[in-house]
Amino acid sequence: MIRIGIDCTGGDNGSTIIVPAIKSFLSKNKEVSFVAFGNEEELKELKGLCEVVHAPDVVPMEAGPLEAMRMKESSIYKMCQYAKENKIDAMVSAGSTGGFLSLSTLILKTIEGVHRAAFIAPFPTKIKGKKVVILDIGASNENSPEELAQFAVIGSLYSKYILGVNNPSVCLLSNGTEEGKGSPSGKLAYKLLKDKSFFKGNIEARNALSGECDVVVCDGFTGNTFLKSSEGMAKMMSGMIKAAFKRNLFSKLGYLFVRKGIKEMSETMDYKSTGGAMLLGINGIVVKAHGNSDSYAFECAINVAYKLVKEDIVNKIKEGIKE
Amino acid sequence: MIRIGIDCTGGDNGSTIIVPAIKSFLSKNKEVSFVAFGNEEELKELKGLCEVVHAPDVVPMEAGPLEAMRMKESSIYKMCQYAKENKIDAMVSAGSTGGFLSLSTLILKTIEGVHRAAFIAPFPTKIKGKKVVILDIGASNENSPEELAQFAVIGSLYSKYILGVNNPSVCLLSNGTEEGKGSPSGKLAYKLLKDKSFFKGNIEARNALSGECDVVVCDGFTGNTFLKSSEGMAKMMSGMIKAAFKRNLFSKLGYLFVRKGIKEMSETMDYKSTGGAMLLGINGIVVKAHGNSDSYAFECAINVAYKLVKEDIVNKIKEGIKE
Repeated sequence: MIRIGIDCTGGDNGSTIIVPAIKSFLSKNKEVSFVAFGNEEELKELKGLCEVVHAPDVVPMEAGPLEAMRMKESSIYKMCQYAKENKIDAMVSAGSTGGFLSLSTLILKTIEGVHRAAFIAPFPTKIKGKKVVILDIGASNENSPEELAQFAVIGSLYSKYILGVNNPSVCLLSNGTEEGKGSPSGKLAYKLLKDKSFFKGNIEARNALSGECDVVVCDGFTGNTFLKSSEGMAKMMSGMIKAAFKRNLFSKLGYLFVRKGIKEMSETMDYKSTGGAMLLGINGIVVKAHGNSDSYAFECAINVAYKLVKEDIVNKIKEGIKE
Repeated sequence: MIRIGIDCTGGDNGSTIIVPAIKSFLSKNKEVSFVAFGNEEELKELKGLCEVVHAPDVVPMEAGPLEAMRMKESSIYKMCQYAKENKIDAMVSAGSTGGFLSLSTLILKTIEGVHRAAFIAPFPTKIKGKKVVILDIGASNENSPEELAQFAVIGSLYSKYILGVNNPSVCLLSNGTEEGKGSPSGKLAYKLLKDKSFFKGNIEARNALSGECDVVVCDGFTGNTFLKSSEGMAKMMSGMIKAAFKRNLFSKLGYLFVRKGIKEMSETMDYKSTGGAMLLGINGIVVKAHGNSDSYAFECAINVAYKLVKEDIVNKIKEGIKE
């Protein structure tokens, strides 16, 4: 039996979207049991379906590590304790990213030999059905060359075992494709990675979603900029497309003719179905669902946690790092 | 008379798009004279219209500073010499970005008191007609807190004098809006800027194009990532929209109804009309047109150079930095 802990308090919609996600997952999958952390009062519906742990406090969205560590009655803190005591195999939250990442790192600790954990997410690419994995997208503010080189290994393992890519290729995110390009730590990471068979050199941000490589490695600040720039531009263009269709009766009519193609585009761009982002490199499985997840998105995040446990990703990383 | 030097060899399309741009500009504006640098043979059409300086070599797109400095017969090198000798007031090139930026910095030198020059560009925002200025988008690989604080001043001056914004607001690009967030040098820059009236705190990449602030400051590596991520996502979505309309006869029909809105969207997103990017902080005016500029885009770049000379931006920066 795989045991997954769920933070039922976090996210913009709280337990109202999370409880249905748990129920729906349970109806499809008999291999999983849940432990739900949150305000008992709000989780009555779950009684009988799974263990409920009363945790009345919510870690604020912008909480720092110190503040989060002090909130011993919070759902995230209690969930991390459960993970530490081996009472659950994975954790899912739509709550405070900073709080969730720092508490899980502080309580579960990084895997022996891993310098820093990385926040990682799959992104859609131009190639239909193909995803590219990008890390670190914001666990750190800066990363050493050695950390970047480890991210290459961690990213490949994720790509191989979770996305099923044979011999995943890895690139460094850079400001040019030539060897001499890159941030100061990126240039040194290039030297560390140069002779690895999986390493395919530098890639520019404009080509990161082209699908030409499977894993893109960067420091946490740059990855966060990449993630949020892409998101900002996608939202801006979606807004413009909607406005174009809403101009008048004729443009609304036009939409009827083209909606199938637009729907396909939305599906490609839909971050919800990817199930959020993961923290890899620590002694535990940490899946962060989007703050504005709906039930479907949250269920996808649960599914990612389930897959990570099944593939025993923590031990795969332990072995990969040793090599 | 304003004298503008034009590199006629650079860019994907070379003199074939540049010569018509010069001619078109001359037909509209009697205040400007040109000096054209390139292969005489290709510039016969310009004889009588402007001075032509024979410069048979082309700086390769990926040239480093040393390679570029050695190419004394290149159009960019000769043009920079003309600028140094005060024979021209501004320079425009669609050629090698690295070559153009490094040669102009090495030959013309940074303005006294300026730590580093910044590569700067106006971007479209969600607010119709409003542009946001972002710098540095790639002149440097890393920047000190003091450099970032100077970029805030340089960016404001551009916003004020070239875009006509009263009291432009400045933000630091960061991974969160709170004061404690940011890259290591961004956090320190925050402290330097904190008490300035124009400073409005941190902004996340996803909101940089929202139009809520006039100038966004970041280090060159991050700015380059922002630029190229946004560009990559915009291209990916444009491709998807086109595919959606091309699916079948009905979707093509649909396009007819909605094309006005889509055209408006393309215009908002059109980087061509912004005229490329500028290097600010050196003793001269440097405008880099897109490598794939057409005649219209190149003429826009010439127009930017003209505006920068008219507004005497170099002296405005000299004064601004002294304060």
